[in-house]
Formats: sequence, structure tokens, C-alpha cells
Amino acid sequence: MTQVTEWNAGEVRSVQDTLAAEEPLEIRVNGAPLSVSMRTPGQDLELALGFLFTEGIVLSRDQIVCIQAEEPPNGMKSNVVEVELRDADFEPSTLQRNFFAASSCGICGKASIEAIRRRNLPSLEPGFRIDPQVLCRMPEALRGEQAVFNRTGGLHAAALFDEGGRLIVVREDIGRHNAVDKIVGWALNQDSLPLHRHVLMVSGRGGFEIVQKALAAGIPIVASVSAPSSLAVKLARELGLTLVGFLRGQRFVVYSGGFRFPPKVA
Amino acid sequence: MTQVTEWNAGEVRSVQDTLAAEEPLEIRVNGAPLSVSMRTPGQDLELALGFLFTEGIVLSRDQIVCIQAEEPPNGMKSNVVEVELRDADFEPSTLQRNFFAASSCGICGKASIEAIRRRNLPSLEPGFRIDPQVLCRMPEALRGEQAVFNRTGGLHAAALFDEGGRLIVVREDIGRHNAVDKIVGWALNQDSLPLHRHVLMVSGRGGFEIVQKALAAGIPIVASVSAPSSLAVKLARELGLTLVGFLRGQRFVVYSGGFRFPPKVA
Repeated sequence: MTQVTEWNAGEVRSVQDTLAAEEPLEIRVNGAPLSVSMRTPGQDLELALGFLFTEGIVLSRDQIVCIQAEEPPNGMKSNVVEVELRDADFEPSTLQRNFFAASSCGICGKASIEAIRRRNLPSLEPGFRIDPQVLCRMPEALRGEQAVFNRTGGLHAAALFDEGGRLIVVREDIGRHNAVDKIVGWALNQDSLPLHRHVLMVSGRGGFEIVQKALAAGIPIVASVSAPSSLAVKLARELGLTLVGFLRGQRFVVYSGGFRFPPKVA
Repeated sequence: MTQVTEWNAGEVRSVQDTLAAEEPLEIRVNGAPLSVSMRTPGQDLELALGFLFTEGIVLSRDQIVCIQAEEPPNGMKSNVVEVELRDADFEPSTLQRNFFAASSCGICGKASIEAIRRRNLPSLEPGFRIDPQVLCRMPEALRGEQAVFNRTGGLHAAALFDEGGRLIVVREDIGRHNAVDKIVGWALNQDSLPLHRHVLMVSGRGGFEIVQKALAAGIPIVASVSAPSSLAVKLARELGLTLVGFLRGQRFVVYSGGFRFPPKVA
């Protein structure tokens, strides 16, 4: 809680406000620093696991020898996660965005998609179908579960639903991609990857990274409350993922993979 | 334009949709690749300039010998910007987030703020004051200028206003930080940095990176339509930047630097 000043049509008052927490997290693998990124503290081990998995550094739970938050001095909270991996085959310096082609002919969206295609991704269930009415109930279920958003207005949420529309897990973060990594890390920890016959919903826009992370986790359907990006749509279409945008009330837009709806829908 | 399927309360129709463009951009400095990040194509040179400036790699326009988009083969659009710098003193491998302390004692928000404080930032004008009514007119001015947002729903905008509330420049991007970098790059190109007596407005949330970039550009006031993060508020308070959130209609919240409003406001 922090003290702030509200200005409302000339009226000034001092009020207490709750802020969305943002702190840097460093992930270290086998003693070497791998990445630093801003995140909302909480479920840090899941975030680290999910990040390592969706970036293709960890391929199975068996590789993880040990994962723990560094014990900080004098009772502060930890902003470092240490991971010990076996059979880890990676070069930290090339990781920055490991799915980008570092080619001398320049990079483009096509190269990014090619690089993802070359990864050994789980197949997406082509036979999995979703009822539009089940989909339409998801935003409300997500809002009902969001612990912090309504208070701070500053967090993104990601949620995993099963085929019956049951909400399995919700994660929130100042970064939408972190919220998705936390969900994938949760699933890896449960040994329930790939997430066939599930729907991933995100509270904002559906960008390239969200689709890429869903593909890594084997999730066949991604729905967002707002618009997807051009490259997200291209990637989803090329790899057969169902991408839904503007899911609000009794309306949504299908950008890719309409075959996962009953015949008369798409 | 792309063909998509709209589902509306059981009614299905095929519609044309405009997507927010997202493509990777590689920035190369003196022949070596420096960074790859997703951005909305357009004003790529400004984006590269702004990124180099706000990350502290370029300190003045004189350092830039040459900047150009790589000529791609067969008429494709370029996703690579090449920059030739003189007196550039940086180590690409340490850049990833160059303002984070890579200390062995762990990282925390305090270390991040300390690292920014150590940079030779322009001072922020303490005597610059803004009229609340001028501030309240900014969101509408920004919306009026937004070229793409209304069509795709998928772009963030950043805008620079002068002290009288006149809109100077607007930039849009799928990444909010890119929109800010494009504005800073525009200013660098005009040789008008630091941007004393200006207000930076962003369409969404005010995070740590937005405040950090405003500080680098010498902008004393940052306003956002939605909530700021905890670390953005901490950084703004420690370095004397005025941070405003929830700027909507006739209401806003002052999180930091209330001394830049007339006495009775904050």
C-alpha cells in the first residue's frame, strides 16, 4: 500500500493505493546467469521452469536436478532462482531469443516461424473441438479468479481451461508472457505436459510470444480478450493452432484453426 | 487485411480484418548484432536510435556516423537496421539489460534503481509545472491522432506533449517501450534532447522501463491511462519524476512528484 494523490474534477484527496508489484528476476542455470527480466514476484520457481521449457532449454522434468530461490541476506525476498540441470545442451550467449535465426541474410517473420518449426514441438490435437458457448464463459470465470487485477488494474492474467470449460489454473503477472510461463511451469511441475485438450486464455492481446509458448506446451487453442498480432496469426495458421481474439460476451473472432469448432461455426 | 470468422451469439460470418503488424527487428552496431526484438514496422531508424540512446549506448547524435536499414533481397521489407558509431564504448554481451547490476549478491529493485542513478542522466526541471486541465485533455488528443489503434485494437501509443498541451509527436507499436523509443529517437534525430518541459503519455500501463526511458530523455512528467507498477513508482519517487496514472476524463492519480502541479493540487 502506498499513499497517492487523486485529482478528480478539481477535488484533491490523498488515498491509499495498491500497486502491481514489479521486480527483476535473475535465472541462473548450473551456476551461470541466463536471463534477467521484470516480473511480478510469486510462483518464481514455476516462472523459471516455464521459461526454461518454452525457450527449449529444458525438454523434460527429469533434467531438473534442483531448483530453488537463492536465500537472500537479512530476510529480504529473493529475486534469483538457481536451477541445476542435467543434460542441458545450451549456450547462454546464444539464448537471447533462441528461436530467431541468427542468419547473415537478415531476419524476418518467416525465419522466426521456420526456427520454431524446426524445434521438436508436440503435435496439436486436430480432433479436439470446443463449444463456442464454453469458450464464451471463460472470460467471466477468469475475472472471478483474478486476485489482484481488480485492485491494481496493472496485472495481466493467463488461465488454463479444460475441454469442459473448467478453470484449472490462473496466473497473474505484470508481463503477459510471464503469466503464460508460470502456467507452463506449473504444468511441467505436475508432469502434465503436453497440455492436449486444453484452452489457454490471456487477458490482453495475443502476440507472437504467447502463441509460441502455447505451441511449446502443446496447447491447441489460444483465446485472448483483445487483438492478436499479424505474426501471431501467421504462426498459428502455419502450425495449426486455433487462435481466437476479441472474446467478449457472446462474440469472438476466429483468426486460425476454425476446424476446432463444430462444423457450422467456422 | 486478412479473412477471419466472426462468431456473434451463434451467427457466423466471414469478415476482413486488419491486424497489428509484428515483426522482429535486429539492430547491428559496427557490424555486430546487438539485439533482436519484436516491433511494429515503421520508423525503424527512430526506434534503433531511441533504443541506443535510452540504453545508454549512444550519448549524443555526433556519435552516429551512419544509420540505415539493410537492403533486403528481392524487394522484401527490411528487418535489420545497421548503425555505425564512433566512440562507442560498450560490450554487446553485457548489454542484455545493461542497467541491471550483475552482482553476486543477487539483484533487486534497489540495485536496478541504483544502476540507473549511476548513469549520467539529464536533470529533470524541478520548476516545470503542469495545469491539471491541460493534462486531462491529452488522452483525447492522443486518441484523435492514433492512426491504427482504432482499427486493430492491438497497438500501444506514446505521445509527447509540450507544456501548453500541444501534441508534438505520436508513435505506435505493439510494444509500449518501442513506442517510447521511437519518440526518443525522433527527438535525438531533431537534436532536441533532453526533452525538458514536456510530458510523455502512454496508452496503457506505466512500467519501470517507461520511467527509465523518460529519465534518459530528461522528460519530467510521465502520464499513463492505466496503472503504474511498484518499481516504476519507486524509481520515479527516487529520481524526482512526476508519475501520473489512470488519466481518464476529469480524473487522474499522482504517484510521484506532486510538486509539478499548482500548489492546491498535490
